[in-house]
Amino acid sequence: MDGYSCYRLKVRYPETDAMGIVYHAHYFPWLELGRTELIRELGFPYKTLEEKGIFVPVLEVNVKYLASAEYDDDIVIYTKVSQFSNVKISFYYEIKRELHKKTELLVRASSQHTWMNKNKNIVRLDRAYPELYETLKSK
Amino acid sequence: MDGYSCYRLKVRYPETDAMGIVYHAHYFPWLELGRTELIRELGFPYKTLEEKGIFVPVLEVNVKYLASAEYDDDIVIYTKVSQFSNVKISFYYEIKRELHKKTELLVRASSQHTWMNKNKNIVRLDRAYPELYETLKSK
Amino acid sequence: MDGYSCYRLKVRYPETDAMGIVYHAHYFPWLELGRTELIRELGFPYKTLEEKGIFVPVLEVNVKYLASAEYDDDIVIYTKVSQFSNVKISFYYEIKRELHKKTELLVRASSQHTWMNKNKNIVRLDRAYPELYETLKSK
Amino acid sequence: MDGYSCYRLKVRYPETDAMGIVYHAHYFPWLELGRTELIRELGFPYKTLEEKGIFVPVLEVNVKYLASAEYDDDIVIYTKVSQFSNVKISFYYEIKRELHKKTELLVRASSQHTWMNKNKNIVRLDRAYPELYETLKSK
Repeated sequence: MDGYSCYRLKVRYPETDAMGIVYHAHYFPWLELGRTELIRELGFPYKTLEEKGIFVPVLEVNVKYLASAEYDDDIVIYTKVSQFSNVKISFYYEIKRELHKKTELLVRASSQHTWMNKNKNIVRLDRAYPELYETLKSK
Repeated sequence: MDGYSCYRLKVRYPETDAMGIVYHAHYFPWLELGRTELIRELGFPYKTLEEKGIFVPVLEVNVKYLASAEYDDDIVIYTKVSQFSNVKISFYYEIKRELHKKTELLVRASSQHTWMNKNKNIVRLDRAYPELYETLKSK
Repeated sequence: MDGYSCYRLKVRYPETDAMGIVYHAHYFPWLELGRTELIRELGFPYKTLEEKGIFVPVLEVNVKYLASAEYDDDIVIYTKVSQFSNVKISFYYEIKRELHKKTELLVRASSQHTWMNKNKNIVRLDRAYPELYETLKSK
Repeated sequence: MDGYSCYRLKVRYPETDAMGIVYHAHYFPWLELGRTELIRELGFPYKTLEEKGIFVPVLEVNVKYLASAEYDDDIVIYTKVSQFSNVKISFYYEIKRELHKKTELLVRASSQHTWMNKNKNIVRLDRAYPELYETLKSK
């Protein structure tokens, strides 16, 4: 998918539940893997942000479940930035299963975040981390 | 809060993350504790539903994070049914922290679910489990 | 069980896996609930220890699984201090299921810990927190 | 390390806790990734075992923590079979961090397992899955 960052994983056993499918809460760490991969590809590992004292907490998250993943499935998380400003960033995600070169859409999701410092105050990204601000703006 | 089911818990250490707060995905099991408590109070433990071959998968979930919980916090999950039909049920939730008799709203959330059998087909609740259907309808 | 601290919980759905039983790793947070309850009963919530800059990391843990817990089971975690010194503390645990007033042993476990400060240096408890040292010693 | 199966992963954010390190229970799914990778390399994905009605529950697990992993660390799980019979299999593990081509040992662990069918009865592997039995025996 053009314009999307792409992160691959295999479903782990503890991600399943007694229904035999991936427990719905375990998709949220996958979304995080999607968005951290996206900013890593831009040259900014999330670890570097935290070392600079910038945190990106989740303000809101919305998920639609269309089909369920199972143990050992090959999963791809597609992520793109859907909105961006000095104080907020939003991501859009599609999570798909790949099986025998066929692809099935499992989840559509979005999340909204803000930029925060260690004292849990919102910060303006152009001041707190201008390089990241310029990189995201130019996308 | 009138008309809400109420479930209390204490934050466990593994629910925290390196930011020192509850990781955002860990609120989803809490929402589930809220809605299973609600139907338990109506006389229908979720375990009984599964023994009857009825599952209640999540179709959609939306969460807004207003403040963050920390280790050992006293949490209350308020849950009510917001919509209900033969094939769907929706819940609305508020998650609050209680500290020294003061209460702080941490999360507002909603979730939509369907009724499903073991073969992952949607079922009509009035046929699959009429007692539960009548109880929910009369609320 | 005499001389044991006792913590009760109900199995949560995300603690189960595709085998329909509690995933083996989820017993470790239960052991932690057991030992933090034990020191809470002595008057020392774990949160207070961390506020004083004392951490109690796990050095070693051993678990024997005798039977498996399932969703919604009533679980009791029995915990006692098995060894104690200025620089180490060990706990012994039994995890049981309660059903219709009958009790079934599910897990036997032990864990060893040390006392550590924020800089990850081992500290002597009699110096770092003499009240806790005296309380544990007098047991 | 000769004779070991090797599985690589990066530490995920939800695997950390409020101490800023990987919560000790999260190493157990990693051990499982190690042993399932080992049998996958022998030609037997764990999913195939379950499809044949063979489960490999954990009887016992022992872990020694030497140093702690942190977010985004590059982790390698080394796994080998330490004991093997018709009714039991034991694994030995070393978990290491890789940083700038240097390696640090974080965890030493062992686990014991049995072969079980869907009815939770222990089965003899040479009868239940002779191909797997012969492959493991020949190692």
